[in-house]
Amino acid sequence: MKKTFLSTLTLAAIALSLPAAAQFAKPEDAIKYRKSAFTLTAAHFGRLGAMATGKAPFDAKVASDNAEIVANLSKLPWAAFGEGTDMGDTKAKAEIWKQAASFKEHSDKFQAEAVKLAAAAKTGKEDAFKAAFTATAGTCKSCHDDFRSK
Amino acid sequence: MKKTFLSTLTLAAIALSLPAAAQFAKPEDAIKYRKSAFTLTAAHFGRLGAMATGKAPFDAKVASDNAEIVANLSKLPWAAFGEGTDMGDTKAKAEIWKQAASFKEHSDKFQAEAVKLAAAAKTGKEDAFKAAFTATAGTCKSCHDDFRSK
Repeated sequence: MKKTFLSTLTLAAIALSLPAAAQFAKPEDAIKYRKSAFTLTAAHFGRLGAMATGKAPFDAKVASDNAEIVANLSKLPWAAFGEGTDMGDTKAKAEIWKQAASFKEHSDKFQAEAVKLAAAAKTGKEDAFKAAFTATAGTCKSCHDDFRSK
Repeated sequence: MKKTFLSTLTLAAIALSLPAAAQFAKPEDAIKYRKSAFTLTAAHFGRLGAMATGKAPFDAKVASDNAEIVANLSKLPWAAFGEGTDMGDTKAKAEIWKQAASFKEHSDKFQAEAVKLAAAAKTGKEDAFKAAFTATAGTCKSCHDDFRSK
Protein backbone atom coordinates (compact mmCIF):
# COMPACT_ATOMS: atom_id res chain seq x y z
CA MET A 1 0.00 0.00 0.00
CA LYS A 2 2.78 2.35 1.00
CA LYS A 3 4.65 1.38 -2.12
CA THR A 4 1.64 2.13 -4.31
CA PHE A 5 1.22 5.52 -2.66
CA LEU A 6 4.88 6.39 -3.21
CA SER A 7 4.70 5.23 -6.80
CA THR A 8 1.71 7.47 -7.39
CA LEU A 9 3.59 10.38 -5.85
CA THR A 10 6.63 9.61 -7.97
CA LEU A 11 4.55 9.47 -11.12
CA ALA A 12 2.87 12.74 -10.22
CA ALA A 13 6.27 14.35 -9.62
CA ILE A 14 7.52 13.14 -12.99
CA ALA A 15 4.38 14.43 -14.69
CA LEU A 16 4.81 17.84 -13.07
CA SER A 17 8.50 18.12 -13.85
CA LEU A 18 8.08 17.17 -17.49
CA PRO A 19 5.06 19.12 -18.70
CA ALA A 20 6.86 20.21 -21.83
CA ALA A 21 8.35 16.89 -22.88
CA ALA A 22 5.06 15.17 -22.17
CA GLN A 23 3.39 17.24 -24.88
CA PHE A 24 5.45 15.59 -27.61
CA ALA A 25 5.60 11.88 -28.41
CA LYS A 26 9.18 12.07 -29.69
CA PRO A 27 12.06 14.56 -29.38
CA GLU A 28 11.97 15.16 -33.14
CA ASP A 29 8.32 16.19 -32.85
CA ALA A 30 9.31 18.85 -30.31
CA ILE A 31 12.14 20.06 -32.54
CA LYS A 32 9.86 20.26 -35.57
CA TYR A 33 7.26 22.11 -33.50
CA ARG A 34 9.60 24.77 -32.15
CA LYS A 35 11.24 25.30 -35.56
CA SER A 36 7.79 25.79 -37.05
CA ALA A 37 7.00 28.40 -34.40
CA PHE A 38 10.22 30.26 -35.21
CA THR A 39 9.55 30.03 -38.97
CA LEU A 40 6.17 31.72 -38.53
CA THR A 41 7.61 34.26 -36.11
CA ALA A 42 10.41 35.15 -38.53
CA ALA A 43 7.94 35.63 -41.40
CA HIS A 44 5.74 38.03 -39.47
CA PHE A 45 8.63 39.76 -37.71
CA GLY A 46 10.24 40.22 -41.12
CA ARG A 47 7.18 42.11 -42.35
CA LEU A 48 7.42 44.38 -39.33
CA GLY A 49 11.15 44.82 -39.97
CA ALA A 50 10.53 45.91 -43.54
CA MET A 51 8.34 48.73 -42.23
CA ALA A 52 10.59 49.57 -39.30
CA THR A 53 13.60 49.97 -41.59
CA GLY A 54 11.79 51.87 -44.32
CA LYS A 55 11.96 49.07 -46.91
CA ALA A 56 8.16 49.05 -46.94
CA PRO A 57 5.81 51.97 -46.23
CA PHE A 58 4.42 52.04 -42.69
CA ASP A 59 0.87 50.71 -42.59
CA ALA A 60 -0.66 50.81 -39.11
CA LYS A 61 -3.11 47.97 -39.79
CA VAL A 62 -0.44 45.66 -41.23
CA ALA A 63 1.89 46.52 -38.35
CA SER A 64 -0.77 45.86 -35.74
CA ASP A 65 -1.94 42.58 -37.31
CA ASN A 66 1.56 41.19 -37.68
CA ALA A 67 2.70 42.34 -34.24
CA GLU A 68 -0.28 40.65 -32.63
CA ILE A 69 0.57 37.42 -34.44
CA VAL A 70 4.19 37.69 -33.25
CA ALA A 71 3.04 38.29 -29.66
CA ASN A 72 0.82 35.18 -29.81
CA LEU A 73 3.54 33.06 -31.43
CA SER A 74 6.18 34.26 -28.95
CA LYS A 75 4.59 32.09 -26.24
CA LEU A 76 4.85 28.82 -28.12
CA PRO A 77 8.38 27.51 -28.73
CA TRP A 78 9.65 27.27 -25.15
CA ALA A 79 7.65 24.23 -24.06
CA ALA A 80 9.35 22.34 -26.89
CA PHE A 81 12.85 22.70 -25.40
CA GLY A 82 12.41 19.78 -23.04
CA GLU A 83 15.17 17.41 -21.97
CA GLY A 84 16.32 15.13 -24.76
CA THR A 85 15.56 17.61 -27.52
CA ASP A 86 19.15 18.86 -27.78
CA MET A 87 20.12 16.57 -30.64
CA GLY A 88 18.91 16.08 -34.18
CA ASP A 89 17.85 18.63 -36.79
CA THR A 90 18.38 21.65 -34.57
CA LYS A 91 20.67 24.64 -34.12
CA ALA A 92 19.95 24.68 -30.39
CA LYS A 93 23.17 25.00 -28.35
CA ALA A 94 23.78 22.82 -25.28
CA GLU A 95 23.80 26.11 -23.30
CA ILE A 96 19.99 26.11 -23.47
CA TRP A 97 19.91 23.25 -20.98
CA LYS A 98 23.17 24.06 -19.14
CA GLN A 99 22.09 27.66 -18.49
CA ALA A 100 18.37 27.06 -18.28
CA ALA A 101 17.68 30.09 -16.06
CA SER A 102 19.42 32.43 -18.50
CA PHE A 103 17.60 30.89 -21.46
CA LYS A 104 14.29 31.38 -19.67
CA GLU A 105 15.19 34.98 -18.88
CA HIS A 106 15.94 35.60 -22.55
CA SER A 107 12.73 33.96 -23.74
CA ASP A 108 10.68 35.85 -21.13
CA LYS A 109 12.23 39.13 -22.26
CA PHE A 110 11.33 38.42 -25.89
CA GLN A 111 7.73 37.61 -24.96
CA ALA A 112 7.45 40.79 -22.88
CA GLU A 113 8.88 42.96 -25.67
CA ALA A 114 6.62 41.29 -28.24
CA VAL A 115 3.58 42.23 -26.14
CA LYS A 116 4.87 45.81 -25.92
CA LEU A 117 5.46 45.83 -29.67
CA ALA A 118 1.88 44.74 -30.33
CA ALA A 119 0.63 47.51 -28.03
CA ALA A 120 2.87 50.09 -29.72
CA ALA A 121 1.73 48.98 -33.18
CA LYS A 122 -1.89 49.25 -32.09
CA THR A 123 -1.41 52.97 -31.31
CA GLY A 124 -0.72 53.55 -35.00
CA LYS A 125 2.23 55.79 -34.12
CA GLU A 126 5.16 55.00 -36.39
CA ASP A 127 7.84 56.24 -33.99
CA ALA A 128 6.52 54.14 -31.10
CA PHE A 129 6.30 51.16 -33.41
CA LYS A 130 9.88 51.57 -34.61
CA ALA A 131 11.26 51.91 -31.08
CA ALA A 132 9.38 48.84 -29.89
CA PHE A 133 10.48 46.90 -32.96
CA THR A 134 14.13 47.71 -32.24
CA ALA A 135 13.75 46.64 -28.60
CA THR A 136 12.14 43.35 -29.63
CA ALA A 137 14.73 42.67 -32.33
CA GLY A 138 17.40 43.15 -29.67
CA THR A 139 15.93 40.33 -27.61
CA CYS A 140 15.96 38.03 -30.66
CA LYS A 141 19.60 38.81 -31.34
CA SER A 142 20.89 38.40 -27.80
CA CYS A 143 19.17 35.02 -27.46
CA HIS A 144 20.42 33.84 -30.85
CA ASP A 145 23.96 34.98 -29.98
CA ASP A 146 24.01 32.92 -26.81
CA PHE A 147 21.83 29.94 -27.59
CA ARG A 148 21.71 29.28 -31.35
CA SER A 149 24.51 27.81 -33.46
CA LYS A 150 25.41 29.73 -36.61
CA MET B 1 1.04 61.67 -68.00
CA LYS B 2 -1.83 59.40 -68.91
CA LYS B 3 0.58 56.52 -69.32
CA THR B 4 2.08 57.12 -65.87
CA PHE B 5 -1.38 57.23 -64.34
CA LEU B 6 -2.34 53.94 -65.98
CA SER B 7 0.92 52.33 -64.90
CA THR B 8 0.27 53.37 -61.34
CA LEU B 9 -3.22 51.91 -61.55
CA THR B 10 -1.82 48.71 -63.04
CA LEU B 11 0.76 48.41 -60.29
CA ALA B 12 -1.89 49.03 -57.66
CA ALA B 13 -4.09 46.36 -59.21
CA ILE B 14 -1.23 43.87 -59.19
CA ALA B 15 -0.44 44.71 -55.59
CA LEU B 16 -4.06 44.19 -54.59
CA SER B 17 -4.48 40.95 -56.50
CA LEU B 18 -1.31 39.41 -55.09
CA PRO B 19 -1.28 40.29 -51.41
CA ALA B 20 -0.46 36.72 -50.44
CA ALA B 21 2.33 36.00 -52.89
CA ALA B 22 3.91 39.36 -52.19
CA GLN B 23 4.44 38.37 -48.57
CA PHE B 24 6.96 35.68 -49.52
CA ALA B 25 10.20 36.18 -51.40
CA LYS B 26 10.16 32.68 -52.92
CA PRO B 27 7.49 29.95 -53.41
CA GLU B 28 9.46 27.61 -51.10
CA ASP B 29 9.23 30.23 -48.34
CA ALA B 30 5.44 30.22 -48.65
CA ILE B 31 5.36 26.40 -48.61
CA LYS B 32 7.60 26.25 -45.53
CA TYR B 33 5.44 28.88 -43.83
CA ARG B 34 2.11 27.15 -44.40
CA LYS B 35 3.53 23.74 -43.42
CA SER B 36 4.81 25.31 -40.20
CA ALA B 37 1.37 26.70 -39.48
CA PHE B 38 -0.19 23.25 -40.00
CA THR B 39 2.50 21.59 -37.83
CA LEU B 40 1.65 23.88 -34.92
CA THR B 41 -2.07 23.49 -35.52
CA ALA B 42 -1.79 19.69 -35.56
CA ALA B 43 0.17 19.70 -32.29
CA HIS B 44 -2.40 21.78 -30.43
CA PHE B 45 -5.38 20.15 -32.10
CA GLY B 46 -3.91 16.78 -31.14
CA ARG B 47 -3.92 17.79 -27.48
CA LEU B 48 -7.57 18.73 -27.80
CA GLY B 49 -8.26 15.44 -29.55
CA ALA B 50 -6.70 13.44 -26.73
CA MET B 51 -9.18 15.05 -24.34
CA ALA B 52 -12.11 14.85 -26.73
CA THR B 53 -11.60 11.11 -27.24
CA GLY B 54 -10.92 10.30 -23.60
CA LYS B 55 -7.22 9.45 -24.08
CA ALA B 56 -6.41 12.29 -21.68
CA PRO B 57 -8.56 13.60 -18.84
CA PHE B 58 -10.56 16.72 -19.68
CA ASP B 59 -8.89 19.83 -18.28
CA ALA B 60 -10.86 23.01 -18.97
CA LYS B 61 -7.80 25.29 -18.79
CA VAL B 62 -5.71 23.11 -21.13
CA ALA B 63 -8.66 22.82 -23.52
CA SER B 64 -9.27 26.56 -23.53
CA ASP B 65 -5.57 27.47 -23.96
CA ASN B 66 -5.03 25.04 -26.82
CA ALA B 67 -8.30 25.88 -28.56
CA GLU B 68 -7.44 29.58 -28.50
CA ILE B 69 -4.05 28.82 -30.05
CA VAL B 70 -5.74 26.73 -32.77
CA ALA B 71 -8.21 29.55 -33.48
CA ASN B 72 -5.34 32.03 -33.85
CA LEU B 73 -3.29 29.67 -36.02
CA SER B 74 -6.30 28.81 -38.20
CA LYS B 75 -6.06 32.25 -39.84
CA LEU B 76 -2.48 31.90 -41.01
CA PRO B 77 -1.83 29.30 -43.71
CA TRP B 78 -4.17 30.52 -46.44
CA ALA B 79 -2.17 33.57 -47.52
CA ALA B 80 0.68 31.18 -48.31
CA PHE B 81 -1.25 29.34 -51.04
CA GLY B 82 -0.46 31.95 -53.68
CA GLU B 83 0.07 31.22 -57.36
CA GLY B 84 3.30 29.37 -58.06
CA THR B 85 3.34 27.56 -54.73
CA ASP B 86 1.83 24.35 -56.12
CA MET B 87 5.14 22.59 -56.68
CA GLY B 88 7.98 21.54 -54.43
CA ASP B 89 7.95 20.02 -50.95
CA THR B 90 4.17 20.06 -50.58
CA LYS B 91 1.17 17.72 -50.48
CA ALA B 92 -1.06 20.47 -51.84
CA LYS B 93 -3.22 19.19 -54.70
CA ALA B 94 -3.67 21.18 -57.93
CA GLU B 95 -7.38 21.38 -56.99
CA ILE B 96 -6.50 24.13 -54.48
CA TRP B 97 -5.91 26.50 -57.38
CA LYS B 98 -8.32 24.92 -59.87
CA GLN B 99 -11.22 25.05 -57.37
CA ALA B 100 -10.13 28.15 -55.50
CA ALA B 101 -13.66 29.08 -54.37
CA SER B 102 -14.24 25.64 -52.87
CA PHE B 103 -10.84 25.71 -51.14
CA LYS B 104 -11.65 29.11 -49.66
CA GLU B 105 -15.03 27.83 -48.50
CA HIS B 106 -13.33 24.91 -46.76
CA SER B 107 -10.70 27.08 -45.11
CA ASP B 108 -13.34 29.62 -44.01
CA LYS B 109 -15.39 26.81 -42.47
CA PHE B 110 -12.40 25.54 -40.51
CA GLN B 111 -11.65 29.02 -39.19
CA ALA B 112 -15.28 29.53 -38.16
CA GLU B 113 -15.44 26.16 -36.37
CA ALA B 114 -12.09 26.83 -34.66
CA VAL B 115 -13.49 30.07 -33.24
CA LYS B 116 -16.59 28.19 -32.02
CA LEU B 117 -14.36 25.50 -30.51
CA ALA B 118 -12.39 28.12 -28.57
CA ALA B 119 -15.65 29.60 -27.30
CA ALA B 120 -16.97 26.15 -26.32
CA ALA B 121 -13.72 25.27 -24.54
CA LYS B 122 -13.89 28.56 -22.64
CA THR B 123 -17.23 27.58 -21.13
CA GLY B 124 -15.49 24.69 -19.37
CA LYS B 125 -18.32 22.34 -20.35
CA GLU B 126 -16.91 19.04 -21.52
CA ASP B 127 -19.90 18.09 -23.68
CA ALA B 128 -19.90 21.42 -25.52
CA PHE B 129 -16.14 21.09 -26.00
CA LYS B 130 -16.43 17.58 -27.43
CA ALA B 131 -19.21 18.54 -29.85
CA ALA B 132 -17.26 21.56 -31.09
CA PHE B 133 -14.11 19.48 -31.39
CA THR B 134 -15.92 16.94 -33.58
CA ALA B 135 -17.34 19.69 -35.79
CA THR B 136 -13.90 21.26 -36.22
CA ALA B 137 -12.21 17.93 -36.90
CA GLY B 138 -14.79 17.36 -39.64
CA THR B 139 -13.67 20.53 -41.41
CA CYS B 140 -10.03 19.38 -41.27
CA LYS B 141 -10.93 16.01 -42.77
CA SER B 142 -13.14 17.26 -45.59
CA CYS B 143 -10.48 19.76 -46.68
CA HIS B 144 -7.70 17.15 -46.48
CA ASP B 145 -9.82 14.68 -48.46
CA ASP B 146 -10.31 17.12 -51.32
CA PHE B 147 -7.14 19.16 -51.32
CA ARG B 148 -4.25 17.24 -49.75
CA SER B 149 -2.39 14.31 -51.34
CA LYS B 150 -2.01 11.21 -49.20
